[in-house]
Amino acid sequence: MSHAELFNLIGYVAGTLTTICFLPQLVHTFKTKSVKDLHVGALILFDLGLVFWLIYGIWLHSWPMILANTVTLGFQLALLGLKFRYGGRR
Amino acid sequence: MSHAELFNLIGYVAGTLTTICFLPQLVHTFKTKSVKDLHVGALILFDLGLVFWLIYGIWLHSWPMILANTVTLGFQLALLGLKFRYGGRR
Repeated sequence: MSHAELFNLIGYVAGTLTTICFLPQLVHTFKTKSVKDLHVGALILFDLGLVFWLIYGIWLHSWPMILANTVTLGFQLALLGLKFRYGGRR
Repeated sequence: MSHAELFNLIGYVAGTLTTICFLPQLVHTFKTKSVKDLHVGALILFDLGLVFWLIYGIWLHSWPMILANTVTLGFQLALLGLKFRYGGRR
């Protein structure tokens, strides 16, 4: 295995770990439909940050960054959508 | 501004946004000393993921990734420390 392959593998492991961490929250919120404890400002800042990481990752031609940030952004945009959809309920 | 400078700036914006998102949780937990709603498995997976992103960022010579992941890792390790320190209280 070359150095490039090794570090790409490390990138994919990193991306897998930090991506799956956000899945339980999404599943939890999808099930409970309760969003009052979710901070909308933090969600928006995080989503915005992921968009910038994605652009940066595309520039670096880094597939681990592109894939991880795309999937995490998908999760977090879905969570933000649930926040807006159920935001009226307490 | 060159392309490299522009995309590095985008990287720094990304890192700033996704880093500051984790600060309110740390401050909140530091103040309340209540950690029962924090999932220790998710915290450990996330911290591990940040370590791998840091290694990957060092390999890429990406200062935005190195700085963002180091600071976020610091925040999250502190949070994990609080989880273990106050984990016995309910």
